[in-house]
Amino acid sequence: MDYTGASFLTGSKVNGPHRKVIVQKYGGSSVADAQKIGGVASRVCRRRDDGVDLVVVVSAMGDTTDGLITLARAVVGTASSPDPREMDTLLSTGELVSATLMAMAIKARGYEVISLSGIQAGIRTDATHGSARIADIDTGRLQAELDAGRVVIVAGFQGLSDNGDVTTLGRGGSDTTAVALAAALKAERCEIYTDVDGIYTTDPRLVPDARKLREIGYEEMLEMAVLGAKMNPRSIELAAVYGVPVLVASSFVDAPGTLIHGGVSTMEVRRAVTGIAVDRNIAKITVRGVPDRPGAAAAIFEPLAEAGVSVDVIVQNSPQGGVSDMSFSVSEGDFQRAREILENGLKAGHSGVLAQSGLAKVSIVGTGMQNSPGYAARMFRALGDANVNIELVTTSEIRITCLVRKEQVQAAAQALHRVFELEKPGA
Amino acid sequence: MDYTGASFLTGSKVNGPHRKVIVQKYGGSSVADAQKIGGVASRVCRRRDDGVDLVVVVSAMGDTTDGLITLARAVVGTASSPDPREMDTLLSTGELVSATLMAMAIKARGYEVISLSGIQAGIRTDATHGSARIADIDTGRLQAELDAGRVVIVAGFQGLSDNGDVTTLGRGGSDTTAVALAAALKAERCEIYTDVDGIYTTDPRLVPDARKLREIGYEEMLEMAVLGAKMNPRSIELAAVYGVPVLVASSFVDAPGTLIHGGVSTMEVRRAVTGIAVDRNIAKITVRGVPDRPGAAAAIFEPLAEAGVSVDVIVQNSPQGGVSDMSFSVSEGDFQRAREILENGLKAGHSGVLAQSGLAKVSIVGTGMQNSPGYAARMFRALGDANVNIELVTTSEIRITCLVRKEQVQAAAQALHRVFELEKPGA
Repeated sequence: MDYTGASFLTGSKVNGPHRKVIVQKYGGSSVADAQKIGGVASRVCRRRDDGVDLVVVVSAMGDTTDGLITLARAVVGTASSPDPREMDTLLSTGELVSATLMAMAIKARGYEVISLSGIQAGIRTDATHGSARIADIDTGRLQAELDAGRVVIVAGFQGLSDNGDVTTLGRGGSDTTAVALAAALKAERCEIYTDVDGIYTTDPRLVPDARKLREIGYEEMLEMAVLGAKMNPRSIELAAVYGVPVLVASSFVDAPGTLIHGGVSTMEVRRAVTGIAVDRNIAKITVRGVPDRPGAAAAIFEPLAEAGVSVDVIVQNSPQGGVSDMSFSVSEGDFQRAREILENGLKAGHSGVLAQSGLAKVSIVGTGMQNSPGYAARMFRALGDANVNIELVTTSEIRITCLVRKEQVQAAAQALHRVFELEKPGA
Repeated sequence: MDYTGASFLTGSKVNGPHRKVIVQKYGGSSVADAQKIGGVASRVCRRRDDGVDLVVVVSAMGDTTDGLITLARAVVGTASSPDPREMDTLLSTGELVSATLMAMAIKARGYEVISLSGIQAGIRTDATHGSARIADIDTGRLQAELDAGRVVIVAGFQGLSDNGDVTTLGRGGSDTTAVALAAALKAERCEIYTDVDGIYTTDPRLVPDARKLREIGYEEMLEMAVLGAKMNPRSIELAAVYGVPVLVASSFVDAPGTLIHGGVSTMEVRRAVTGIAVDRNIAKITVRGVPDRPGAAAAIFEPLAEAGVSVDVIVQNSPQGGVSDMSFSVSEGDFQRAREILENGLKAGHSGVLAQSGLAKVSIVGTGMQNSPGYAARMFRALGDANVNIELVTTSEIRITCLVRKEQVQAAAQALHRVFELEKPGA
C-alpha cells in the first residue's frame, strides 16, 4: 500500500483531556431532506445519551453537489471549464448547508451542539483544488467544543489551504474527513453511516446468497472498496495507517454493520477468501509488438496520462523475439480516447492495437490466500465450469483478478461465491 | 441621524497603492440564474475594459435565502426556531454560491478574477447573529488581489465575529457590505445594481407621472428609503458618514440611475420637495388618558419593545387636565399583538386604547423644505382638496408625514405629486 501524504498528524495539536470520542459520518442520501436530517439527528441524540463525545461529519444533501456542478457548467458555457479554486468554494457550501441544518435539528431536540466548517475544524490541506490532501489537523477548537459538552457537527469534504482558500478533498472526501478527524482526536472508532448496511461478500444484486461480513481487514477492504460501501480507498488507507477501526453501517436501520480493522479475530478460523469484488464497465487494450527496450512502456503510457486516462491493471507477457504484447484495462468512459491516442501513436514503435470493450473485473479477495497455494487454480476451474472465458489475469498478494465478458459477470460471481462457500458464516 | 456603530474604519489596514476603485453590488434578482449571472459578468468585463479596479459584491441568487430559511424551519419543526449562529452560516452559503459562479463566469470570459467570502474580504463584525454590525475591515487581501490586476468578487451580507463564527448583516446586508467596502477602499463610488433603475419621485405604480431622480442627498434618501430602491437605511447612513457617493441603477438596462451623494448641485435650482414616500400596511394605536408624569410613556412602550413590536412614528398631544393622548403607528403585522399588550396593560394607568388598522403613510421629503415655510399647509390643502382625511401628522426637519386610509393613498400621492410639480425635471 502507498501511504504517501497520509502523515498529516505531524504538528497537530491535541488539547484538553481525552474522553471516549466517536466520529460518525453520514452520507448524502442519509441527509437528503429535512425529514431524513431529523431522523439522523434523533439517532445522534440517542447515541449522545450513552455518554460519548460525538463528532458528526456530514456530506452534502442528496444530489446537491451534482446540482452545483451543473450550475457551474451552465455559467461558464461549453467553451471552458469552471475555475478549480472557485469550484471548491462553491462545492463546499453543500456540506455547510447540511452541517448547519443538522446542528439546528439536534439543538431543537434540546442538545448542546455546534457546527464547524472544515476551516473551523482546523483541517489544513495542500492547495490541490478538487482533490486536496489533508496536511494537518489543529484540533484546538474541536476539542474545546467537545470539552464544553457539545456535539460537534463538521462539514465534510473540505479544508483550508495555506493561502487561505477553501479546498475540497474529491469524491468520497467526507469519509476521509471522518477518518482523519478520528485519527487526530484519537477516537475510539469512526462510524460511516450510509445507504448500505455493511460490506458484503459480493454484490447482492449479482449473488442473492451474498452475506454481510461482520468484520474485514484494512487490506482486504482496500481490495473490496469498489463494492457497495462506496468508501474511497484513501479513507481506508488513512484508517490503516492510524489504526482507526471503521464501522460501516446503515443510517436508516438499526442493524450491525461491518467493522473494518487491523486486528485478526482470534475467536474463529478466518477463511482464505473473504469476498468477491466486481467492477463493471471495463475495457481492455492490447498493444502488440512493444519493443523490448527501456522507455518503451513509458512511450505508451505517458500520452495516456497526459490525456487524463486512468489506467487500471497492466499485464505484460515475457518478450519473444525482441517484442512483447502489453495489455491493460481502462474504464469504458476512457476507452475511445485511449484507443485513438494509441492508434495515432504507432510511431512509438509498437506494431498494432487490439481493443475490446464490454468487459468486467471479477476478483477474489482475502488475506488468507497469501500463504495458501491453489486459489488461482480453484478460481480458474470454477470459471471454466461456469463456461466463463478469462480475458486477462492479474494478481496482488491478497487478490486474484480475472477480466471476463460483462454479460458473464453474474455467472462468474455466483460460481466463485459458491466454490469458496461465502454464503456460510465464518467472518 | 443616528450613526451609532458606523465607525467601522477604526483600525482597518489599507495596503498598497490607491488606484481608481469602483465597488459594484448586484442584488438577488440580478443573479437569479446562470443566464443572468452571465449577463452581469459581461457588464463587469466591459467596465473592467475601462481600466478601473473593480470590487463586485453579490447577493444570493433569486430566492435562495428564502429557500434556506424554509429548509431550516422544516428541520427544527414548529416547536422551536433555528439556532441563530447556525442560521448565519447556513444563509451565508447563498452568497458564496453566487460569488463563485460570478467569478467562474468572468474567468470564462478571459479576465483575471477571484471570489472572496466575507471572511476572506476581511469583514469583521460584532457577534449579533442575524443582524451583525461591521466593526472593522482589513482590506489587506482585497487590496493585494486588486494590485494583482484581478476583479474581486465579494460574497455580500456576511462577516466574521471575533470568536471565529460566520455572521450575517440582516436584510439589505449586501448593500451594507458594498458601501462599507467602498468606504474602506476609499473607492470613487459605490454602484448598486438592482431590478429598479433608480430612485423615483414617488412609487410609479401609484403615480404614472413619477419621474426618476438624477440625484438625491443622503438625508433625503434616508427618508425615501422605503421606495422602490429597497436600499436599507443602514447602508445609506454608512455612505453619508464616509461620504461615499452611491449610484442606484438597473442591472438589466443601460440607463442612467440615481446618484445619492452629499454635495448640493450648483448647476440648477434645487426644488424644495424631492419626492413622495409611501408606506402601506400601517396601523395606528391611540392610548387615551396617559398620566402627565415621568415614566408614563415608558410604561406604554417597554412592554411593546419586550414583545419585539417595532413602533414607528409617535405623537403626543399637549396634556390637558393632567392626562394626554398618545398615538403611534405600527406595521399591520404587529397590530394585534400591540393592541392586546396595551389592552391588558390598563394597570399602567391609561384610560383606554383606540386601534385602527388599514392605514398608510404618505410623506413629502426634501432638504429644501428646511428653511421654507408653508409646505405643511400646501400638503394639507392638497390632501383636503383630494378629499383625503388625515389621521395623524408627524414631521422631521426634511419630511412631513401624514397617516391616511390605505384606500386613499393613491389619490393622496397623485395630488401631492401634482401640487409639488414633481413630474417636471429639476433634480
